[in-house]
Amino acid sequence: MTALPTSPSELAADRALPLLGMVAYGELAAFTRLAADSAIAPTLTDRLALAGFAGHALDHVRRLDARIVELGGAVNVTMDPFAGVLAEFDRRTEPSTWAERMLKAYVGYGVSDDFSRILAGGVESTCRDLLLDVLSDHGHTAYVVDLLAEAGAADATLAPRLALWGRRLVGESLGVVQGVLAGHREIVALLELVLPGDEPQQRLFAQLTAEHTRRMDRLGFAA
Amino acid sequence: MTALPTSPSELAADRALPLLGMVAYGELAAFTRLAADSAIAPTLTDRLALAGFAGHALDHVRRLDARIVELGGAVNVTMDPFAGVLAEFDRRTEPSTWAERMLKAYVGYGVSDDFSRILAGGVESTCRDLLLDVLSDHGHTAYVVDLLAEAGAADATLAPRLALWGRRLVGESLGVVQGVLAGHREIVALLELVLPGDEPQQRLFAQLTAEHTRRMDRLGFAA
Repeated sequence: MTALPTSPSELAADRALPLLGMVAYGELAAFTRLAADSAIAPTLTDRLALAGFAGHALDHVRRLDARIVELGGAVNVTMDPFAGVLAEFDRRTEPSTWAERMLKAYVGYGVSDDFSRILAGGVESTCRDLLLDVLSDHGHTAYVVDLLAEAGAADATLAPRLALWGRRLVGESLGVVQGVLAGHREIVALLELVLPGDEPQQRLFAQLTAEHTRRMDRLGFAA
Repeated sequence: MTALPTSPSELAADRALPLLGMVAYGELAAFTRLAADSAIAPTLTDRLALAGFAGHALDHVRRLDARIVELGGAVNVTMDPFAGVLAEFDRRTEPSTWAERMLKAYVGYGVSDDFSRILAGGVESTCRDLLLDVLSDHGHTAYVVDLLAEAGAADATLAPRLALWGRRLVGESLGVVQGVLAGHREIVALLELVLPGDEPQQRLFAQLTAEHTRRMDRLGFAA
């Protein structure tokens, strides 16, 4: 049993903790996947680059966990409710080539980072600044864009195949967001706060889809 | 073709670079394996702990690579000759339980860190200090010792099985060292510098075996 929140700062912590836990778990999952990508990268240069991105994600976990502790939360208890939200996504989107694998990270992290960025608007400013910093791009986007541009230049059949794969990935990514909303009332409450008015979930999905289209445009692929 | 070294500092760099490359590659391999361990850890606490150790290893890669660049080396060229030295070891030592997996890291890193520490005695002081710092234990040993003590307390048949597994692992680890010496004259030259006199390789293996025995004693297992 938790005591009822009695002060505005406790209310603020109550609101921020679930989002910090969700993003911390997402960054831990990103660390795991980027490290696995690094392990099978085609060259030592790629292996080191992907290991570096994994390192950024781990650094984010550390900073988010430190903030969770500052707010009086327990790291495990705060992160744990979000464990496994990506398992079904991963089962349904097994990449069959290196380019597909790289696109999966680009689309998947893109959607989940956008979702978290929107929710960050509803928490107190220290948490919001930390979240926005952690969710900003640390070079991974440029790495994937360059890699896929190069691969696309070498193989003209790649772009239409990846465009199709991108549509599959965004559908499954939006399914993950839907799953999180279905299982976490505290995240729904935060969403209603940042997108007040009717049908916040529909407007969320419209925003996420628009951002995805912009990301695919950047690759020169039709979303 | 490389220009002939003309000054003592160039000679020092020539001597240090192969060892920096070997240790940097070893730390990259440790990062990859600890991240893979983290991915399948039994609890979120273990997952975070192992991810943290992976993060230390990655930090070591960065610091070693920075020193390689300072000495005028190219990171890829310096690390690359050591790529794949662990592939055969990994094929021959596939752990079948979590405890076996943890013991593999303890024994494998133990032998390879001891080997690198001995060689570090032969390079200039800035490199040596960096290497000794990178090769010092950052909590991984205590983590494994505690974990195996707990597992051993819960299952009396574990200690003799792990003792047997430890003997297999040390044999294979010494095989890796042998493979490195067979393929890298510059590492052999360094070894002859730090262990002058007859049969440096025999004396190296005696030291590595003695250190392994001490490590297994710490677990309460007979080496």
